[in-house]
Amino acid sequence: MNIPEEISAHFAAGTLIAAIAQDFSSKEVLMVAWMNQEALEKTLQTGNVTYWSRSRNQLWVKGESSGHTQRLISIRYDCDGDALLLEVDQTGAACHTGERSCFYREIGIDA
Amino acid sequence: MNIPEEISAHFAAGTLIAAIAQDFSSKEVLMVAWMNQEALEKTLQTGNVTYWSRSRNQLWVKGESSGHTQRLISIRYDCDGDALLLEVDQTGAACHTGERSCFYREIGIDA
Repeated sequence: MNIPEEISAHFAAGTLIAAIAQDFSSKEVLMVAWMNQEALEKTLQTGNVTYWSRSRNQLWVKGESSGHTQRLISIRYDCDGDALLLEVDQTGAACHTGERSCFYREIGIDA
Repeated sequence: MNIPEEISAHFAAGTLIAAIAQDFSSKEVLMVAWMNQEALEKTLQTGNVTYWSRSRNQLWVKGESSGHTQRLISIRYDCDGDALLLEVDQTGAACHTGERSCFYREIGIDA
């Protein structure tokens, strides 16, 4: 596998890694979810983005039930090795609400 | 304050919220860091993006020492209320390594 040591060290310590999914074409940020080592390995091996569901405590192949899959285009990791940025080819809505992106609500700025 | 109840509930439970900073113009994802309620309030009030440093356990006004500040353009929250997406006007490098984005290293894909 190609998983860098800096990332593996977090998995070995039992830490989940934040994974940001970005539309490879529009650059829209679609969602953020979590990966453990198994999820990352499966994502790299299959090209189908797979997360670790913290609520269901199990692997979550994105779109497996909804059909709203994410095909992996590229994957990068940050300076700390505890976050991933995935460029994906998103089929349909990324969000379970039916919105394209999970970030569909804005907060007012005072400044 | 304008902080939605769904987000406040996470803060009240002692949970930090993941905050993704995206360049408002190029749409490049620059970094991911964390916010508590105080950090989010300060960000909304001042327009200068402020995180909670998990390593230093204190508020972290981005760029305060480096000059590499982030001016807040817009802020959105996700369907779960536990992640934020900030569009920012980034001065200089977002990453402490001097790279524009913290996500400057790629992982090879097997598939």
